Amino acid sequence: MTTVSRTQDQHSHLDEDPAFALHRGGKLHISSSVDVHDHEGLSLAYTPGVARVCDAIAETPELVETYTWKSNLVAVVTDGTAVLGLGDIGPEASLPVMEGKSLLFKQFGDVDSVPIALGCTGVDEIVETVVRMAPSFGGINLEDIAAPRCFEIERRLRERLDIPVFHDDQHGTAIVTVAALHNAARLTGRTLADLRVVVSGAGSAGVAVTKMLIDGGIGDIAVADSKGMIHDGREGLNPVKQELAGISNRAGLRGSIESALAGADVFIGLSSGEVPESVVATMADDAIIFAMANPKPEVHPDVARKYASVVATGRSDFPNQINNVLAFPGVFRGAFDARATDITENMKLAAAEALAGLVGDDLAADYVIPSPFDPRVVPAVSAAVAAQAREDGVVRA
Amino acid sequence: MTTVSRTQDQHSHLDEDPAFALHRGGKLHISSSVDVHDHEGLSLAYTPGVARVCDAIAETPELVETYTWKSNLVAVVTDGTAVLGLGDIGPEASLPVMEGKSLLFKQFGDVDSVPIALGCTGVDEIVETVVRMAPSFGGINLEDIAAPRCFEIERRLRERLDIPVFHDDQHGTAIVTVAALHNAARLTGRTLADLRVVVSGAGSAGVAVTKMLIDGGIGDIAVADSKGMIHDGREGLNPVKQELAGISNRAGLRGSIESALAGADVFIGLSSGEVPESVVATMADDAIIFAMANPKPEVHPDVARKYASVVATGRSDFPNQINNVLAFPGVFRGAFDARATDITENMKLAAAEALAGLVGDDLAADYVIPSPFDPRVVPAVSAAVAAQAREDGVVRA
Repeated sequence: MTTVSRTQDQHSHLDEDPAFALHRGGKLHISSSVDVHDHEGLSLAYTPGVARVCDAIAETPELVETYTWKSNLVAVVTDGTAVLGLGDIGPEASLPVMEGKSLLFKQFGDVDSVPIALGCTGVDEIVETVVRMAPSFGGINLEDIAAPRCFEIERRLRERLDIPVFHDDQHGTAIVTVAALHNAARLTGRTLADLRVVVSGAGSAGVAVTKMLIDGGIGDIAVADSKGMIHDGREGLNPVKQELAGISNRAGLRGSIESALAGADVFIGLSSGEVPESVVATMADDAIIFAMANPKPEVHPDVARKYASVVATGRSDFPNQINNVLAFPGVFRGAFDARATDITENMKLAAAEALAGLVGDDLAADYVIPSPFDPRVVPAVSAAVAAQAREDGVVRA
Repeated sequence: MTTVSRTQDQHSHLDEDPAFALHRGGKLHISSSVDVHDHEGLSLAYTPGVARVCDAIAETPELVETYTWKSNLVAVVTDGTAVLGLGDIGPEASLPVMEGKSLLFKQFGDVDSVPIALGCTGVDEIVETVVRMAPSFGGINLEDIAAPRCFEIERRLRERLDIPVFHDDQHGTAIVTVAALHNAARLTGRTLADLRVVVSGAGSAGVAVTKMLIDGGIGDIAVADSKGMIHDGREGLNPVKQELAGISNRAGLRGSIESALAGADVFIGLSSGEVPESVVATMADDAIIFAMANPKPEVHPDVARKYASVVATGRSDFPNQINNVLAFPGVFRGAFDARATDITENMKLAAAEALAGLVGDDLAADYVIPSPFDPRVVPAVSAAVAAQAREDGVVRA
């Protein structure tokens, strides 16, 4: 019944790119296991039968978990201000990424989700909007919201809602990075406590990775933004970077990231700033380089491998891809299975440990993290997350 | 992977009712035509391929219609304050109805939709929330929001958004009622201009039916609320009823609905107030009775048939069911097919005419409106709505 419009005709040459062809009509659809093909079906799925189910939920609110899709449904919420490497492209242009996220939620974790791209960018507005629509959802996945607003939005939503709230750009990346770094350390005969780390990028991912590594017992870790190393003597830091300055960089590194990398064990790239080969060469023996900028890693893997024992990137065409899809489907699957009301720091660490553990005895320089297509990933992550939710006591009675 | 919880066990006896059994796990799921089973699929449906699609939309915004599901996606928005006959049961308890709506949208009109049950009831809050999430959606279907707030919410959303906004309790009911009344008049050798109508109920449906019948050229129409007939001499009317008083009841009927029904040609029941048989008996010859309260019609059809030439109800177990599913799937299908920016009064009238026209020569006392399962309904309604949208010039360039 759909009319082919002028717009579609004008742009049909775009479909020569298979990415466009695949996106035509969008990537998501609504489906149902219930078929309403006669009066009887209609009277059960809709009025009058549905009224009995509504009544029961009104009387016993927890039944909403059993008799609606809410308890398996995530809102993928963005404001379109920090989309992939594209930046602030607005809510409509962000939709293909959000639909992709929903696709991955479903295919990897059997989690239903719906893209909600918002036409507002203020912290108060986003928080209020999400709180108001929360009765329809079992969880909130924040996505591609620019730092530092993303931190405040997540903090306030976690406070106000009794459903899991998870900013994937922070915690998804952190879980996978920590898992990979744990294994890279193991491969080179060390633990996290033995490592001095330099992080490039103080956006959502850089901050979350740093905090999680501190929680995980890292030796020392320092973060650089575009102005150089973040330390507690630096002026003009926003509150998030101030907090970072207080908890990281015990060595008190100042100045450029280049000087900080001299003798460092680990480089974690979460920005797009290139690192010259001459600087990479100054790192410690058995260096570990995670150059995760996409599509152009901060250090090309071929260069990194000349100096480092373990190299990882964000790309699928090199070994050791740090891909969030290793985390978020299993994290929400586990949170939903446990009827969790929150996703705690412990639950994130449990996810990272479970992920790292899957590598086991196959550990090698080109295998510190499982493939996203390893069928063991979601069951392992979700089981660890659910168990930790119960241990942390953040599950519905 | 889902854990059977204590809650589900406690209440499993509910599933002896087939309506509950059918609702277990909810009625909706997300699905996708795209299968991401390897790195290549992932790199097209997600990063890096998806970035090219995002970029294209950022540059040429109308491409969002071609390469995302937005242009086929409706938000089914409620605040849970006027759900079926159940009243103000809150957003969570309203979800089974909203999921039912989404199910019907999909199965009847191939329209994707998502329930958005809001945890706020203020007009400003609801309007702001819907405006903020509108970038994700191609249309807004308002549902089960109590009068008179629903009128103001719809009016302001239509002003502020360039996508179709439709309050189904008003306009869906009005379209089907007008179609059925048109045919009932034809069966009894009259036109709408020949009829004097009394409407019971000044809620969302009563107001919309009255306005649409006035637009459609009804002879005279008067509305009763719980305090009696609405007329321009009555004090304490809210703005919506004041407007009604100004445009309806040219005969100046005052007092009770019982007295107004004496000699009336048509009774349209959209409240739950019973009408005694003795009052029905005072209506004009060839009376038409649409007693649409659910589950208990204002006049039982067996009683109504003793005095009326045509009887319709909201129930599926009597002839002539006035069911909104005859309207909303085709209305949005047509609006989407035409890339409409609004749903005008003309488009609603066109839907009603198309619906009435399907009855054709088979017109009979027990067949003034097609069955919801008549496969001609959605194609006819959507074609009429799309054509009228183009004629009214409310389509995207």
